[in-house]
Amino acid sequence: MPITEPEGLSPTLQLAFDLLRRASVTPDDEGCQDLMIERLRALDFHIESLPFGDVKNVWAVRGHHGPVLAFAGHTDVVPSGPHTNWEFPPFTPCINDDGMLCGRGAADMKGSLAAMLTAVERFVDAHPDHDGRIAFLITSDEEGPAVDGTRAVVEHLRERNERLDYCIVGEPSSTARLGDAIKNGRRGSLGGILHVKGVQGHVAYPHLARNPIHQVMPALDALVNEHWDAGNDFFPATSFQVSNLRAGTGATNVIPGEVEVVFNFRYSTEVTHETLRRRTEALLDQHGLEYHIDWTLNGEPFLTAEGELVDAAIRGVEAVTGERPALSTSGGTSDGRFIATLGAQVVELGPLNDTIHKVDERVRASDLDALSRIYEATLQALLTSGEVNV
Amino acid sequence: MPITEPEGLSPTLQLAFDLLRRASVTPDDEGCQDLMIERLRALDFHIESLPFGDVKNVWAVRGHHGPVLAFAGHTDVVPSGPHTNWEFPPFTPCINDDGMLCGRGAADMKGSLAAMLTAVERFVDAHPDHDGRIAFLITSDEEGPAVDGTRAVVEHLRERNERLDYCIVGEPSSTARLGDAIKNGRRGSLGGILHVKGVQGHVAYPHLARNPIHQVMPALDALVNEHWDAGNDFFPATSFQVSNLRAGTGATNVIPGEVEVVFNFRYSTEVTHETLRRRTEALLDQHGLEYHIDWTLNGEPFLTAEGELVDAAIRGVEAVTGERPALSTSGGTSDGRFIATLGAQVVELGPLNDTIHKVDERVRASDLDALSRIYEATLQALLTSGEVNV
Ligand SMILES: [Zn+2]
Ligand SMILES: [Zn+2]
Repeated sequence: MPITEPEGLSPTLQLAFDLLRRASVTPDDEGCQDLMIERLRALDFHIESLPFGDVKNVWAVRGHHGPVLAFAGHTDVVPSGPHTNWEFPPFTPCINDDGMLCGRGAADMKGSLAAMLTAVERFVDAHPDHDGRIAFLITSDEEGPAVDGTRAVVEHLRERNERLDYCIVGEPSSTARLGDAIKNGRRGSLGGILHVKGVQGHVAYPHLARNPIHQVMPALDALVNEHWDAGNDFFPATSFQVSNLRAGTGATNVIPGEVEVVFNFRYSTEVTHETLRRRTEALLDQHGLEYHIDWTLNGEPFLTAEGELVDAAIRGVEAVTGERPALSTSGGTSDGRFIATLGAQVVELGPLNDTIHKVDERVRASDLDALSRIYEATLQALLTSGEVNV
Repeated sequence: MPITEPEGLSPTLQLAFDLLRRASVTPDDEGCQDLMIERLRALDFHIESLPFGDVKNVWAVRGHHGPVLAFAGHTDVVPSGPHTNWEFPPFTPCINDDGMLCGRGAADMKGSLAAMLTAVERFVDAHPDHDGRIAFLITSDEEGPAVDGTRAVVEHLRERNERLDYCIVGEPSSTARLGDAIKNGRRGSLGGILHVKGVQGHVAYPHLARNPIHQVMPALDALVNEHWDAGNDFFPATSFQVSNLRAGTGATNVIPGEVEVVFNFRYSTEVTHETLRRRTEALLDQHGLEYHIDWTLNGEPFLTAEGELVDAAIRGVEAVTGERPALSTSGGTSDGRFIATLGAQVVELGPLNDTIHKVDERVRASDLDALSRIYEATLQALLTSGEVNV
């Protein structure tokens, strides 16, 4: 029989249940942040609501001096799709017979939010006068446009010259076992829409036309085969992918006048978006194309190659799971890219990501309790000088 | 003042006015064929209506023995678009102050139909017992799908083992001056829709996907640069053009699972459509693509390299204009491709084509009278043995 009521469960799972019950599809928060604020206020956190547009954000700090360790996360979830596609209703959390906590957001990332909060509760209880400061940066728009969420809060903090030394983002970083991977960076993402102009005409009179499809193909082939960099210890080589291609009037006898090519770079810290733009345009120029490109910088890469945070997180995982996590920078972008611009060391550390954004999203219930202990150990390593120095 | 009433004009222009007044947009005939049938019946033509689907066709023959010289044409016209875009209303013919007969179909090809009919009227009047047979093959679907028009009539004639020796198609073949070009063939047209399969994925994980856009580009580049043939005395080299290209889900972070490429060959008599298919597929196989192609043979090439019809048409033009026409096979396909399959010698000979399918379609009024004399001279050369043998 699945467990459908939180009574008797650990505080972490109880809080996870309370969060999962709220259908907080981006950008709705549905009271999740209020739930957390109430608990943080009880721990003497100073709470600031920082709404931007229709996005609710909260910035909460405990302590007045010294280094700031922030936990970052989001209360919004991606849509569930039709509930009938789910084994259990997506917004009625339960623990199934295999011990899995089921519900939209269980892994991404209400489970992490619950684990962070209970970790801080235990830590503050044991170390009411801890070193430095603990902070929470919670948004309700990570899965959406992500403009009025963490990005806006970070800009606000930057304007106020707020200090941020360490940040643990609760994104589900684990792949096969809890804590098997910590993300200590993310590749950059640079998008472009390339418009190549030709001269429209009739296929029967190709000498009167200039087929932009024919012109763009060798240029795209060169971009695909270009060696942009070799990557480095933390990043794979920069990759170029064409995601969308469109040309033609629909008529089979007309040579089109234009081609539209949508492409994307995922890039390492060995190149910059400026370099990629310049090299792309130089290559297109070499092919004699008449073109323009609309560029979109989705996110610059960030990397916390080493430092106290990475060390503390690795030791925290080892202490709880007995296994050393791998450092990884793979995957898409995350809000870590915004936080890193404040100069903070940033890691992403959370539960398994195999069911996120899918139907029947779930996470092992006991993993959330273990994750909470990992967060607690990390807090202890960074904010209790006595013990760290022993 | 533009001339808006046909009174006082030549019989050719009077008939052209009567045809142009009928808004016979494909596949509508609007009584044009009945107008012609009435006149042909008066000349002792045997008339057969051969409707297929919603397309009206007529096959008319005068005479009982000997070689058949057919005039082929269409009563349908392409749409006019908004009448307000026209200097003169498209279905209210007039002769403007520059002596141009204006109206949709003036050049393509009601002017030719009128010129053919009056040429035959004068010829029959002068030579009631001419050699051989004169025929008319008139359809109301040349500008549309062209399935139930000339193609269907030709199949019908083939089943009855009808003889067809010479065919003059009234398509506007002239480019700068009336009769400067006679088309004695057309290139073939072979279309293909190429579907290349890849493996869909996320741009952040290109190693888990196989981008079909990246795969198809070098293959298409090879097809574009392939030397299919060198053409011959009558045809330019076979050309390959991509007309439409489509790939992508619209999302900028998804590697698509498939690409669709629409392409077209215009090919000479130096290759066959079977050869082109085989070579295309061999080239795609070399590039290791997972693909299939939906082929459409729009028209096989035809060529009347030489013979009595070409000679008679050239001499007919020379007699009327004083200039020798060039032979040409350029341009799109025409109904000539169907008629040629009956083993007939085929030429296309008609007025200037500079305004066809455009607003303000027009043709020099005096050119239609001259064209009628060219057709008459050609009839005379082919169907009056006495004079030819003199
Ligand atoms: Zn997330
Ligand atoms: Zn035509």
